[in-house]
Amino acid sequence: MSEIPAPIFDDGFRAKLETLIRWRRDVRRFKPDPIAPAVLDDLLSLAALAPSVGLSQPWRFVMVDDPARRAAVRRNFEVSNAEALAECRQERKALYAKLKLAGLDEAPHHLALFADAEPSQGHGLGRLSMPETVAYSAVMAAHTLWLAARAFGVGVGWVSILDPSAMAATLQVPSSWRFIGYFCIGFPQVDDDTPELERHGWEHRRRDGTLALLQR
Amino acid sequence: MSEIPAPIFDDGFRAKLETLIRWRRDVRRFKPDPIAPAVLDDLLSLAALAPSVGLSQPWRFVMVDDPARRAAVRRNFEVSNAEALAECRQERKALYAKLKLAGLDEAPHHLALFADAEPSQGHGLGRLSMPETVAYSAVMAAHTLWLAARAFGVGVGWVSILDPSAMAATLQVPSSWRFIGYFCIGFPQVDDDTPELERHGWEHRRRDGTLALLQR
Repeated sequence: MSEIPAPIFDDGFRAKLETLIRWRRDVRRFKPDPIAPAVLDDLLSLAALAPSVGLSQPWRFVMVDDPARRAAVRRNFEVSNAEALAECRQERKALYAKLKLAGLDEAPHHLALFADAEPSQGHGLGRLSMPETVAYSAVMAAHTLWLAARAFGVGVGWVSILDPSAMAATLQVPSSWRFIGYFCIGFPQVDDDTPELERHGWEHRRRDGTLALLQR
Repeated sequence: MSEIPAPIFDDGFRAKLETLIRWRRDVRRFKPDPIAPAVLDDLLSLAALAPSVGLSQPWRFVMVDDPARRAAVRRNFEVSNAEALAECRQERKALYAKLKLAGLDEAPHHLALFADAEPSQGHGLGRLSMPETVAYSAVMAAHTLWLAARAFGVGVGWVSILDPSAMAATLQVPSSWRFIGYFCIGFPQVDDDTPELERHGWEHRRRDGTLALLQR
């Protein structure tokens, strides 16, 4: 057992945590101001405390600064987004085309996330029957970073409209790494408690988690 | 924009959030006491605020109370765990066999998580090139529940040593649902800031997230 006394979390903290969860957003509209390097380091250190299968910590982050690589990611997004628009149901195409789905041009920081599909750390524990738990661990690291960022006033936007196979080539990562997501990071132009897709009429949230609950 | 003023998160909250992240654990040793239904409802409602691709909220939770179904899950775990032990490197088998990898017998609440692979909500946005983002959304709902649970003093343990194809059959869920994970929930016997796998000598954490960071 730890030698440090266990922390107590009170009603005040729980209320603030709920506020954090409610006001985390997928941000696509950023101010140009950079984030302090110490804050980015803090966010990555907190991400490293995320749960991981077999304590494998398989997340692999890539900070993308090179303009040529950023341009390649932007082209990847444009091609993938044009394909998505083409697949969109006819009556939704006009609305889809108006949505802003990524802040790639404005966000001061670009962070790509991969998962090492065969990490030596963790000695394989917990993932034999479900190898996808390696990717899931990386997702929880990203989600930790995302929530923590909001507590620093920093916005994060997850870009998934990308061809994942091209991302590994663009960023020249080891062959065992699988692409998970691409994150735009910066200060948001506005704070909001309502998702942008909801405000622009694409979809609305179902708020009660018990609606998605079966009893067995 | 929201009509509610944006919240301010201060140093005190950030320090407490870091403590929450540090003291979240994968719990396998539970007290038998049940969790208040209102708290379980709160946790599921918070999970419903997680990020999801295209605002699709594809998480599907199943609360498992039926003793026959719990017994089937337990057999699934035993078989999968025996296979994992057989695959374990020789010099690690004895240590593996001694680890307690699930709290299935003690935890008062069992929660299975699936993702609807083809949710109508969200109208397909964001997942054409990366359909795995549906599963990733469900993972972030589980992770939201997990962190929030810790703030209520509630422990969560993710069981992944399971044959996922058998889980859908055992729990009789719709055919479009994909199994993500099985969660034991209850009050932990002990609170700790160090993962159980680390305390028992299986693996240790690398603490600095920037160790897993490339620059491109």
